[in-house]
Amino acid sequence: MIRPLGDRVVVKPLPSEEVTKSGIVLPDTAKEKPQQGEVVAVGSGRLLDNGQRVAIDLKAGDKVLFSKYAGNDIKIDEVEYLILREMDILGVIE
Amino acid sequence: MIRPLGDRVVVKPLPSEEVTKSGIVLPDTAKEKPQQGEVVAVGSGRLLDNGQRVAIDLKAGDKVLFSKYAGNDIKIDEVEYLILREMDILGVIE
Amino acid sequence: MIRPLGDRVVVKPLPSEEVTKSGIVLPDTAKEKPQQGEVVAVGSGRLLDNGQRVAIDLKAGDKVLFSKYAGNDIKIDEVEYLILREMDILGVIE
Amino acid sequence: MIRPLGDRVVVKPLPSEEVTKSGIVLPDTAKEKPQQGEVVAVGSGRLLDNGQRVAIDLKAGDKVLFSKYAGNDIKIDEVEYLILREMDILGVIE
Amino acid sequence: MIRPLGDRVVVKPLPSEEVTKSGIVLPDTAKEKPQQGEVVAVGSGRLLDNGQRVAIDLKAGDKVLFSKYAGNDIKIDEVEYLILREMDILGVIE
Amino acid sequence: MIRPLGDRVVVKPLPSEEVTKSGIVLPDTAKEKPQQGEVVAVGSGRLLDNGQRVAIDLKAGDKVLFSKYAGNDIKIDEVEYLILREMDILGVIE
Amino acid sequence: MIRPLGDRVVVKPLPSEEVTKSGIVLPDTAKEKPQQGEVVAVGSGRLLDNGQRVAIDLKAGDKVLFSKYAGNDIKIDEVEYLILREMDILGVIE
Repeated sequence: MIRPLGDRVVVKPLPSEEVTKSGIVLPDTAKEKPQQGEVVAVGSGRLLDNGQRVAIDLKAGDKVLFSKYAGNDIKIDEVEYLILREMDILGVIE
Repeated sequence: MIRPLGDRVVVKPLPSEEVTKSGIVLPDTAKEKPQQGEVVAVGSGRLLDNGQRVAIDLKAGDKVLFSKYAGNDIKIDEVEYLILREMDILGVIE
Repeated sequence: MIRPLGDRVVVKPLPSEEVTKSGIVLPDTAKEKPQQGEVVAVGSGRLLDNGQRVAIDLKAGDKVLFSKYAGNDIKIDEVEYLILREMDILGVIE
Repeated sequence: MIRPLGDRVVVKPLPSEEVTKSGIVLPDTAKEKPQQGEVVAVGSGRLLDNGQRVAIDLKAGDKVLFSKYAGNDIKIDEVEYLILREMDILGVIE
Repeated sequence: MIRPLGDRVVVKPLPSEEVTKSGIVLPDTAKEKPQQGEVVAVGSGRLLDNGQRVAIDLKAGDKVLFSKYAGNDIKIDEVEYLILREMDILGVIE
Repeated sequence: MIRPLGDRVVVKPLPSEEVTKSGIVLPDTAKEKPQQGEVVAVGSGRLLDNGQRVAIDLKAGDKVLFSKYAGNDIKIDEVEYLILREMDILGVIE
Repeated sequence: MIRPLGDRVVVKPLPSEEVTKSGIVLPDTAKEKPQQGEVVAVGSGRLLDNGQRVAIDLKAGDKVLFSKYAGNDIKIDEVEYLILREMDILGVIE
């Protein structure tokens, strides 16, 4: 498995079917469209200039929306994942 | 529903009719025109460099003006929403 | 009315006649020319990194000069206003 | 008169004759040439991130050199002035 | 050997065969693909603005993923290495 | 004379003959070549975000190397000077 | 000799023969290739925003790797040197 560093999270993108099931659809407009995924692992968090480490406000299993063009792709045991920064996560689907 | 992260807010854009009713019209000029909407959910707020979390100065139900090209579109149960940063909100209509 | 957020102010631009009356004329040169207006509402102020909120050094009724291309236009009850950041205000006419 | 905000100063540009009298001439080279002027009013000063206001190191009457393309033009009672940031002032002629 | 300065690490890139063995494959997509390597040496860490030195969250022997275009190449005794900043390391393979 | 503001220094550029005498020659390469000069006046120093003023590590009479394209030209009593920021000074010739 | 200011160091670039002797070769790839040199003089160090001066983690005699296109060339008594910032030094050869 991957342990993300600092303010990074590993996310498994969700295919379109699951997206429809949760009632959330990403419209086809001119603006940047977010994508859905499930958090798989979270880093230790961002380090503030005063030396304080800020825990990432996410946990494994969270369904999240993230900016479509953010992050780095990676494939582990034939499954695709994304490594994103916490700031690329827009919100949690609850 | 969406729980926005950090300094983000979820806003439901208002159609033009409601805009007229409140007496506010966005003129057609060369400058960037703001758009109106209703706050649906607010994040936990921006984190300062000293570790202090600053609550967003908005609450669900607030009618707000925001920069037209800001944010990410999303559709939940056939309703369109926007995920914006607090700094993209210009003001509250009172 | 509009309650501006943070370091923003709502300004009502002054037409050219009033500008002449106050003895201030904006010359026609190659440099960016400021515009005059009257402050209508001020936000709660900018937030410093130490968590201190700094009140805006302006009050409703102040006649101000501001950068011509700054801010967002808005029309309330047929009157045009501008939403500006405090840093776009150059000075107060006294 | 104009009360400049924050780290801004109002400067009255000096015509070329006065420049010659003080023994300072701005050469005609490829580099950016500074211009001379007299400080007319100073703002309350820049605000540091720790909340401390730093008085501008200039007073009305100071003859200053400033970057030629800096600032905003304004004309008061037929006299031209410039609104500059303190950081655009290179030095004081003593 | 190289002692990296500050927030830098020396990494020995891993050839594709070892990558396959660990079950991690880097897919061929439009996004930037990370590369794998083994940490060989770590610097003393980043210095915060408060004067605190933050140890790098990595140790020699760690298998890491890093951004493909990051860092500087160097060859020591016929072996190629990369000098990267800690922020170019995406995560640790565990 | 000129009193430079903040982190600025006034430098009198040295002609090429003096440069040769001190044994330092600026080679003709693709990289940016520094120029030599003598410090004539120094400002009060840079102001840190904590409100502390940091004295400039230079004094009148110091021979310095500076980046060739930095600063503003000025001519006082037929002598050419440069107003530079302390950070444009590369080092002192001792 | 040159006394570098602040976070700068004076480095004497090493010719290719010495590079080979130490067993380190800089490969010919598309990435930016570092260059080797010997530290001749170090400045007083970078100044943090809290007023603390941070000594440069290098001393005269250190063999260093640095980014090829960094710094300013200078020739003293017919010998070529480079003035670099500490952050352009990638690591020390030990």
